[in-house]
Amino acid sequence: MPDPRRPVLTLTTDFGTADHYAAQIKGAILEVSTELCIVDITHEVPAHDIVSGAFTIRAAAPAFPPRTVHIVVVDPGVGTSRRPVIVSALEHYFVGPDNGVFTLLYEADPAHKVYQISASHYLRETASPTFHGRDVFAPAAAHLARGIAIENFGDPVEDAVKAELPRPKVAADGRVRASVIQVDRFGNVITNVTRAAFDALLKKTGRSGLKGAGAAAAVTGMRNTYAEGGPGTPFFLFNSSNSLEIAMLQGRAADTLGLKAGDTVEMELT
Amino acid sequence: MPDPRRPVLTLTTDFGTADHYAAQIKGAILEVSTELCIVDITHEVPAHDIVSGAFTIRAAAPAFPPRTVHIVVVDPGVGTSRRPVIVSALEHYFVGPDNGVFTLLYEADPAHKVYQISASHYLRETASPTFHGRDVFAPAAAHLARGIAIENFGDPVEDAVKAELPRPKVAADGRVRASVIQVDRFGNVITNVTRAAFDALLKKTGRSGLKGAGAAAAVTGMRNTYAEGGPGTPFFLFNSSNSLEIAMLQGRAADTLGLKAGDTVEMELT
Amino acid sequence: MPDPRRPVLTLTTDFGTADHYAAQIKGAILEVSTELCIVDITHEVPAHDIVSGAFTIRAAAPAFPPRTVHIVVVDPGVGTSRRPVIVSALEHYFVGPDNGVFTLLYEADPAHKVYQISASHYLRETASPTFHGRDVFAPAAAHLARGIAIENFGDPVEDAVKAELPRPKVAADGRVRASVIQVDRFGNVITNVTRAAFDALLKKTGRSGLKGAGAAAAVTGMRNTYAEGGPGTPFFLFNSSNSLEIAMLQGRAADTLGLKAGDTVEMELT
Repeated sequence: MPDPRRPVLTLTTDFGTADHYAAQIKGAILEVSTELCIVDITHEVPAHDIVSGAFTIRAAAPAFPPRTVHIVVVDPGVGTSRRPVIVSALEHYFVGPDNGVFTLLYEADPAHKVYQISASHYLRETASPTFHGRDVFAPAAAHLARGIAIENFGDPVEDAVKAELPRPKVAADGRVRASVIQVDRFGNVITNVTRAAFDALLKKTGRSGLKGAGAAAAVTGMRNTYAEGGPGTPFFLFNSSNSLEIAMLQGRAADTLGLKAGDTVEMELT
Repeated sequence: MPDPRRPVLTLTTDFGTADHYAAQIKGAILEVSTELCIVDITHEVPAHDIVSGAFTIRAAAPAFPPRTVHIVVVDPGVGTSRRPVIVSALEHYFVGPDNGVFTLLYEADPAHKVYQISASHYLRETASPTFHGRDVFAPAAAHLARGIAIENFGDPVEDAVKAELPRPKVAADGRVRASVIQVDRFGNVITNVTRAAFDALLKKTGRSGLKGAGAAAAVTGMRNTYAEGGPGTPFFLFNSSNSLEIAMLQGRAADTLGLKAGDTVEMELT
Repeated sequence: MPDPRRPVLTLTTDFGTADHYAAQIKGAILEVSTELCIVDITHEVPAHDIVSGAFTIRAAAPAFPPRTVHIVVVDPGVGTSRRPVIVSALEHYFVGPDNGVFTLLYEADPAHKVYQISASHYLRETASPTFHGRDVFAPAAAHLARGIAIENFGDPVEDAVKAELPRPKVAADGRVRASVIQVDRFGNVITNVTRAAFDALLKKTGRSGLKGAGAAAAVTGMRNTYAEGGPGTPFFLFNSSNSLEIAMLQGRAADTLGLKAGDTVEMELT
């Protein structure tokens, strides 16, 4: 079977799925072309939570083929002067508001490029001031996916907005203070510590392991798979997106430890 | 890239997404053709709520390309003598039960047409008496999307059922009493006042603005975008579907005002 | 319009839709081919609930066209020695862990075949030990859907794992004790009694009807459609997947009877 590679678009929003907003974005994409393959990443980003959106698109995008166009609509400033932009990074494209939601992509790919979306012939004729997801991002993304070059949408942006994201901190007492980015459906506690940052820290300190500390002292060492943990004991693990998480066999680590998004987790190298 | 325009079908149901009913509708569509583009509008219409379904499909459909086929399954009378129908309106097609869920489309397009679905060769061989979404509406919609003319499905219907929908009322004291159709994920309160009806009312009364009244007295005037409102103060706005809604910057208007679907909102022209 | 039958893949998981895990499976499928048609059955199987997953895929699969490839990821043992398998049954294919989730398909089709997935060239280059849904099942399913023969993925499996599923029991007092598999969005109580098993029981006992007993004594006889029941009285009905369920017109049978998944329902033949 030949595979002519239909272009792929994804959606990451804070719209939920009960309302029809996400569907309207798809309608606007399909008005440009029905040959595109549209995939939902999630519509459950907490309302207006740019930080959560930034971590979600960073974690999810690499599972998609190169040249995928990712629409990200977490857009509390819709209708203000915040710019609509297209980002080229990590061999993918990203379309959304210039409000910091793409910060982790800028950091992950120093060769990223950002362009403003201003060419009106790639937008809906009458853009609602309250729904750029449908009237600006969707048509621009669809034209981009069909092959219009990124430079054709508008001017390059050199001063793209970066969000203040929580960063893991290595304190004077040697303890690492990480932040909880998300609790997933299984009660796994996903932190902002990446495998790359952790490996660099081990190398720098000459340590080799990790255990919980402070309120997270119950977290034992590092495991490779969920099944390796003993039931009832929370443990560390690098998940399939290379983020450090706290998990528990046959249980919900988040509930056992009383952790939720935004909380701090203490740990120490061993 | 050529665009041969794959036909588009949408789904609007009260099935939720935890159960596998919506998926079975898709399976039945794909049995007819795998070349159709299937999009979920929502499966979260409140169970058996024909009025909510009527407003949802009216608001969402225009975002899709002309000739889209919209399947709407809010069908408490499945298995009774209520007719399965296909509606042509607003350059789109709608497939579902003749129980009033298409009322707003009949009103929006005086040139609408309705046909009963009775031609058994466009249906599943054995139709379950409890799941016409899968066994009647899905295959009929798929054949319609593939190009079978609407007249071929059955006889024209002249007495299509219309639902009793809540209508905004202009009272003797000059106050407008609107109904809350829906509260969205952001806490925006969506009413049954359309931009067209509002403009007509302004023209008729010579007024130019709007403010809240009665229990909704805290609602200030009209804004064009969410960002224009001051934080903490609810305001009016015509949303991207041209419905009047009450919104609030950095907050949930519905919670602040204690409003939910079905409630009445008082307002007065200024 | 010609219909070259794009291959269809479905997803049934316990991942929910708030996290991006289900989306990552789709990304991995699309890396293999963008010409496949991907449909969600549900992502709301209760976390790690193999029994629920087994009943869900058994009920939903027959609504899809023959040769559909169903990916089922309810996989508490990911990363252990449990085998990844492909199942051929009922003219469909099923891809997932060998943990019993396919038990009802083995029973429904005595001619089923099971093959281990071990051919590494059909998998992602580096498989995460915690996410075989993305790195093993998705690419294998995509290659299978594109036409790779099932025998090419690995060795036949003769000792596939079977789950202990709840079975209806006919007690010495003549009463039938069924289990609640699921409560759906409408409050319908779906049991583990199939129409085939019930018909066999009637034939064997010479009875012709059914009524509730014990704590379910309020359930009246059998109806053919939801609309046939009187409001407020729960009744039995064989649903569109040929499972016995307890339903109620204008009400939620599960709430009226206080029933939830896992509970026992008593009934007797009449």
